[in-house]
Amino acid sequence: MEQELKNLLAAIPEADRPAMEAARAHQARLAKPPGSLGSLEDLAVQMAGITGQVHPTLGKKQLLVFAADNGVVAEGVSSAPQSVTLQQTLNLTRAKTGAAVLAKHFGCGITVCDVGVNAEIRDPAVLNRKIAYGTHNIAQGPAMTRAEAVQAILTGAELARQTPADALGVGEMGIGNTTTSSAVLAVLLGAEVEAVTGRGGGITDESFSKKKAVIRRAIELNQPDPADPVDVFAKVGGFDLAAMCGAFLGGAATRRPVVIDGFISAVAALCAVRLCPRVRDYLVPSHASYEIGYQLAMDALGLHPFLQLGMRLGEGSGCPLAFQILDAACAIQNQMATFDQAGIDDGYLDQIRQGDAFTP
Amino acid sequence: MEQELKNLLAAIPEADRPAMEAARAHQARLAKPPGSLGSLEDLAVQMAGITGQVHPTLGKKQLLVFAADNGVVAEGVSSAPQSVTLQQTLNLTRAKTGAAVLAKHFGCGITVCDVGVNAEIRDPAVLNRKIAYGTHNIAQGPAMTRAEAVQAILTGAELARQTPADALGVGEMGIGNTTTSSAVLAVLLGAEVEAVTGRGGGITDESFSKKKAVIRRAIELNQPDPADPVDVFAKVGGFDLAAMCGAFLGGAATRRPVVIDGFISAVAALCAVRLCPRVRDYLVPSHASYEIGYQLAMDALGLHPFLQLGMRLGEGSGCPLAFQILDAACAIQNQMATFDQAGIDDGYLDQIRQGDAFTP
Repeated sequence: MEQELKNLLAAIPEADRPAMEAARAHQARLAKPPGSLGSLEDLAVQMAGITGQVHPTLGKKQLLVFAADNGVVAEGVSSAPQSVTLQQTLNLTRAKTGAAVLAKHFGCGITVCDVGVNAEIRDPAVLNRKIAYGTHNIAQGPAMTRAEAVQAILTGAELARQTPADALGVGEMGIGNTTTSSAVLAVLLGAEVEAVTGRGGGITDESFSKKKAVIRRAIELNQPDPADPVDVFAKVGGFDLAAMCGAFLGGAATRRPVVIDGFISAVAALCAVRLCPRVRDYLVPSHASYEIGYQLAMDALGLHPFLQLGMRLGEGSGCPLAFQILDAACAIQNQMATFDQAGIDDGYLDQIRQGDAFTP
Repeated sequence: MEQELKNLLAAIPEADRPAMEAARAHQARLAKPPGSLGSLEDLAVQMAGITGQVHPTLGKKQLLVFAADNGVVAEGVSSAPQSVTLQQTLNLTRAKTGAAVLAKHFGCGITVCDVGVNAEIRDPAVLNRKIAYGTHNIAQGPAMTRAEAVQAILTGAELARQTPADALGVGEMGIGNTTTSSAVLAVLLGAEVEAVTGRGGGITDESFSKKKAVIRRAIELNQPDPADPVDVFAKVGGFDLAAMCGAFLGGAATRRPVVIDGFISAVAALCAVRLCPRVRDYLVPSHASYEIGYQLAMDALGLHPFLQLGMRLGEGSGCPLAFQILDAACAIQNQMATFDQAGIDDGYLDQIRQGDAFTP
């Protein structure tokens, strides 16, 4: 199975640089001050690189939500009971949760995939790719075996590859997964636990101290290898995190943009880039999570979020709005008039070419 | 006509506080950690206050674009010729410019209103509310008479009032209007010209120095009264700015949210709030303009933009995406399950009530 992972990583292509250059060249002819549409221009160029089309369009969007339980909740790091994972996993398929409501509103599909919920799920609306009934408690030993970690990555990648959509978003549902995400991020960045661990939904000072102590203990006990993301997942990660990492890999392997949601999604994306740096070209940020570790993960990825909404819900809730921004970028690229079409006179064009563009 | 303006200001109601409290109370019952949807929750509460509905929905959205020329371009503060105002005003009605493409893509209407373009516009797609053929050069005297300033405000207000839409956005097209906006903002805030004046679309160092000197001269020469926004418009403003200010007033008077675009729109919104502080309740920010004065105007308004896209196009180009965020806020408010409906157990609810909420 390790060989299958290697094959997956090798299959991820570089972005199409000539398409990106042609997209930039087209933008230089659009009737606006150069660069005045900022990130929308950069995004259109990125989409050109991903799709190989100078005039990219993104049709169907799909949010992939990976659900799993985390044994570390036995340590009291979350105030919500583990049963909330199961209940919200079901609610995600019924357009009842925050991310599901936003996905439905914006017309993007949602796939809910059980990779490790600690319960039997009989509802066929939830895709059954269960690897185990939750992870082991990382404060007492490794979360899972290395084989399970690889299996979770390949499961996420396979789901992404098979999803018929032009853009993907990656979210999660799993009580306890800010704890595992902080642990993984601390290892990957060699960062202090204090710097990557947040309060999540609002735990008390006591629970917060406990959470940080548990993460420190899990890292000391399991000694994950920072150079080997698979080992980090196996030692202090979760099935959700590993499958999400796989989804980023699978989306990139099939040349589609993959949108990062918040903190947990950003950590999974960073793991994907550590496994294969070319994945970076396919990543699209969404909103700035309120969780403290988010910014460190994004800094490591060299990405800046487009939305400042103070959100920290998870579930992939930032992706539906980010899809709207992606569509906006494509619309600009495909529908704006060029200077010629806009009937703007040549003297002005000469000034633009000399870099002395207009100040409307 | 001054009396008509006074009547308009007096007609602007306070937001509906009981509806806002009821909206907050509903949010506390939604199945998510309290506050975890951040600004989307705040926006839903604001929409409740504006509409008086605990479960607000916004149907039709309309972008109002005010076009006018500015006599100050004679000083060489813009590298684009004045003719670009006319051409882009026409292009706005033909879905060719940046804002028009985005409006069309997101299904929001666009009204293009000539309040002072320095040309005869015969195209019936452009609403003719022309007050004059451009302003006078503020470096040599006042931009317009006080009566014209009042007329421009009332024109914008009337257009907003008569526009059949549930949410409005306010944009502009007018070569030279970053110069007038910087002048107005410097006066309103008592700020240094240096602190509120940007390079716009990319003017040279020489043009940039000239632009700042012209603004300083215009303020010294005309001596606008910072306590009287009408006087500030008349002395160093523009027909576009004054009409946009009126649109914010008119939107508030008819209890509808009004979205601020970038720098120029923010300055117009600040003028509206100076005329009537209750307008503040109806304002919705969109994107953080790259123009240096934008942040100062927003600080003065106490608002934070939701979108970080490095845009500086104007035309109202930030509004269509902001409408999507508003709709997202309403969808959350109206469609998410409460804890009861989500089937999440009572023990967890007790913890939420004690402020020890979950960290998913």
